[in-house]
Amino acid sequence: MSAVTKSDPKTYIFNHTMFRVKDPKASIAFYENVLGMECFRRADGPDFTNYFLGYPSGFGANANASLEEKAELMTTREAVLELCHNHGTENDPDFKYHSGNEEPGRGFGHICIAVDDLEAACRRFDELGVKFKKRPEEGRMRHIAFIYDPDHYFVEILAKRGLTNAA
Amino acid sequence: MSAVTKSDPKTYIFNHTMFRVKDPKASIAFYENVLGMECFRRADGPDFTNYFLGYPSGFGANANASLEEKAELMTTREAVLELCHNHGTENDPDFKYHSGNEEPGRGFGHICIAVDDLEAACRRFDELGVKFKKRPEEGRMRHIAFIYDPDHYFVEILAKRGLTNAA
Repeated sequence: MSAVTKSDPKTYIFNHTMFRVKDPKASIAFYENVLGMECFRRADGPDFTNYFLGYPSGFGANANASLEEKAELMTTREAVLELCHNHGTENDPDFKYHSGNEEPGRGFGHICIAVDDLEAACRRFDELGVKFKKRPEEGRMRHIAFIYDPDHYFVEILAKRGLTNAA
Repeated sequence: MSAVTKSDPKTYIFNHTMFRVKDPKASIAFYENVLGMECFRRADGPDFTNYFLGYPSGFGANANASLEEKAELMTTREAVLELCHNHGTENDPDFKYHSGNEEPGRGFGHICIAVDDLEAACRRFDELGVKFKKRPEEGRMRHIAFIYDPDHYFVEILAKRGLTNAA
């Protein structure tokens, strides 16, 4: 018997973050090819589809499990990204979501990916044609960059253990 | 020598999600007392303060480290929540952020907390006076609830391994 019961909030986990995307092909290509995540589950509704992605390492001992097994395990891990696609938005050239960082609609800020080698990561982003909002050498905060995802959500790229600089 | 280099995207981690909050006292009380996270870092800027929270379990072997040690380690783990407070918003009764789920400003959806015992979690939320957007028994999806945080961001509460139901 443990002192922590199953209803203790200490047993909770921060499972996922969800935002809407206009074109899942563009978004999944970005999160898989540029950022290295894996899409391990797709859930279809009548007029929407949700895609669940994350880093294989977040499955711990199950990092090399099949996608089907990962889909079953995904509620037991942290740091899943859910991309919600409302069917048809990809065909409307005027349609766009709010990133959360402009008026109106300010609230949500960004997700952050931490990397071992920020300089190498940014070189690779350049080779892939990724658009930067802020390069490491711009501004005071040299240990971070910001890139845009296909919907113009901000993605912070942070050097792991970069805490000796400003936040 | 490993086959995975330090610049391989497979070494990336989904470190954090950031959104803005009007009143950090209310928000930190919610994320600590209601949802069981721990605030392990505070970073002050000239006119803003960022608070970093997460579940101690996400530190793995360092779950019981001091807050100072966790602040140093926080870029090496996933599932950190960054709450950005622009000073003064808490004193403006008319000020509010967009949750991302209403027009204008739709884009961001929610964060999700996975729990072992959804019924017990919801009983506890009721005792704490938490406002529900959707109780488990409402609608088709019995394995999830949605509650509101102090800024009215949606927080999904998901039963771990609840994948036998619809998404």
